[in-house]
Amino acid sequence: MKSPVSTYRLALVGFGSVGRGLAEILSLHRQRFIDRNDADIRIVAVCTRRWCVYEPNGIDAATLLRAVASDAVGALPGACAWSADQMIASADADVLVEASPTDMATGEPATTYIRAAIARGMHVITANKGPIALHFAELRRLAAERGVMLGFEATVMSGTPALRLGWSDLAGCDIQEVRGIVNGTTNFILTRMERGMDYASALAEAQRLGYAETDPTGDVEGYDAAGKAAILANVLMNAHLTPADVEREGITGITRDMVAAASAAGERWKLIARVWRDGPTVRAAVRPMRLMLRHPLAGVDGATNALTIITDLLGDVTIIGPGAGGVATGFAILSDLLTLQQGVRHVSF
Amino acid sequence: MKSPVSTYRLALVGFGSVGRGLAEILSLHRQRFIDRNDADIRIVAVCTRRWCVYEPNGIDAATLLRAVASDAVGALPGACAWSADQMIASADADVLVEASPTDMATGEPATTYIRAAIARGMHVITANKGPIALHFAELRRLAAERGVMLGFEATVMSGTPALRLGWSDLAGCDIQEVRGIVNGTTNFILTRMERGMDYASALAEAQRLGYAETDPTGDVEGYDAAGKAAILANVLMNAHLTPADVEREGITGITRDMVAAASAAGERWKLIARVWRDGPTVRAAVRPMRLMLRHPLAGVDGATNALTIITDLLGDVTIIGPGAGGVATGFAILSDLLTLQQGVRHVSF
Repeated sequence: MKSPVSTYRLALVGFGSVGRGLAEILSLHRQRFIDRNDADIRIVAVCTRRWCVYEPNGIDAATLLRAVASDAVGALPGACAWSADQMIASADADVLVEASPTDMATGEPATTYIRAAIARGMHVITANKGPIALHFAELRRLAAERGVMLGFEATVMSGTPALRLGWSDLAGCDIQEVRGIVNGTTNFILTRMERGMDYASALAEAQRLGYAETDPTGDVEGYDAAGKAAILANVLMNAHLTPADVEREGITGITRDMVAAASAAGERWKLIARVWRDGPTVRAAVRPMRLMLRHPLAGVDGATNALTIITDLLGDVTIIGPGAGGVATGFAILSDLLTLQQGVRHVSF
Repeated sequence: MKSPVSTYRLALVGFGSVGRGLAEILSLHRQRFIDRNDADIRIVAVCTRRWCVYEPNGIDAATLLRAVASDAVGALPGACAWSADQMIASADADVLVEASPTDMATGEPATTYIRAAIARGMHVITANKGPIALHFAELRRLAAERGVMLGFEATVMSGTPALRLGWSDLAGCDIQEVRGIVNGTTNFILTRMERGMDYASALAEAQRLGYAETDPTGDVEGYDAAGKAAILANVLMNAHLTPADVEREGITGITRDMVAAASAAGERWKLIARVWRDGPTVRAAVRPMRLMLRHPLAGVDGATNALTIITDLLGDVTIIGPGAGGVATGFAILSDLLTLQQGVRHVSF
């Protein structure tokens, strides 16, 4: 009863944490997906702003990782001068993996890359939040018209299957509200502040550990969480929100005294993204909230993320898992590929 | 781009909490599944030990529920004298929904019904734990050979997609361990004991509220959880365990003093089902454990269930949701149908 093995030739735009995480998984486990999932997954092309490699039969993932680590990609067979546009137009590939840096204001250049890949008949899997937060309805329509898959599991909670839980596992339920902790950086800072650090020291530690960027605005002012709230609204509740439509308050106003007062009352501050129906419309907000310790989201610590999906038929279902990390996000790409391999193409509503 | 609507004609064995829950969902939302999921779901036959109804074009779910409530099924059009065996052999149906009472020692008569339905080319969705705890490998093989689906989401955590999280969403990961709270009755009793009740009073309240049966042995001695542990081992870790292979200790030895001592230490007693790899074999155990409050399973209260799946690529992923209830378990049946509708047939390893 063994099914035939399908080959998936991936073209990657971007080779940061997500692309390297995917390559690490493939360098260790490529044979597993052939044996168990009948999926032969090969990276055939990678383009970044600095270099491009194209090997139609597949680039050895371990070799690629070593070359990148030693800044020797130019010496690889297949090294070429393609831009990402040229790669998408010309590479013999089945799937575009869009993992270029996120621009939450424009969604570019990722959205242009995705449109071009779909038009060429490629499946698209994006780890880039911009296109899904800003252009989901259009991209879903384009993919459906072309009969290709649009995968986006990586955009919220990395590889933790939070979006899939809603659009696939809970298909058939009416989703009435979604709320969660979807930004690991702020959750890490708040957790540290409970142990007595002030905001500035906790932020500095997050930066030292690589959880927060040098300019932490995107995380601490809630922009990242607002983008994810828009994605949750669009994917799980069929809304048409952009990040700018999300009411937003970050954690920069939370003081050590406020954290201590909450602790004394048996509560914890968490930055909560919430999407809910308000009559015929869907609204979304990101703001710090005090949760009682017994709240299912209260125990979610550090860089872990969590999402509660509130449904008519099942009540509340909560999923907790990693919210970031190269391998965890690389797994999200892989899980979209395995969904494609199961024959599933579209989010259904 | 609207897909054609597929019709699913269901034949139910048993019409207890699960069957009634499914009928309630269909009586309210049948059109939703046509509109959103392209699935026209009809109950065409129901057989219990006392009555049988068969209507090839579908039985109106609300009418059926009213007739059952007023003990007037015999007056329905389509009332007949079929046994369950006769229904499976003769009804014009696509899917057997097996929801007869569980026998965790033999898996009968459910396993015989399932074998007969598969042999006839029917898909099978079971809410009955016995066949999956005892005969999963055989039934999966039979279904694969016949090209039909074997659905079993209802057997652990009712409609909360805990099994689907493991075999579908986390496909591609290596599952190294699974642990959780999978019996709501014992969790309810332990939660009550934390508020000062002794074991006997907490059990009596659980019985009064319908959470525990008159003979509570199956729950409080851990037999139900052991059956679910065997299912988790077989479905998620490709093991061949039976409930008798699961090391088992119930909650009857937990005293109010033990609960109070745990509380004083900032810990909680929970009945934990655990499945793990031990060299080349898979082992399983059910036993009460003291968990620190920060443990992701410690905050799971009352009749809520939770499962943590420990993987190589994602680390720990936890799902929390209802563990029982007619509508919640009816939704599990529905979610298997919608998986079938997506074209997915088999658990892959």
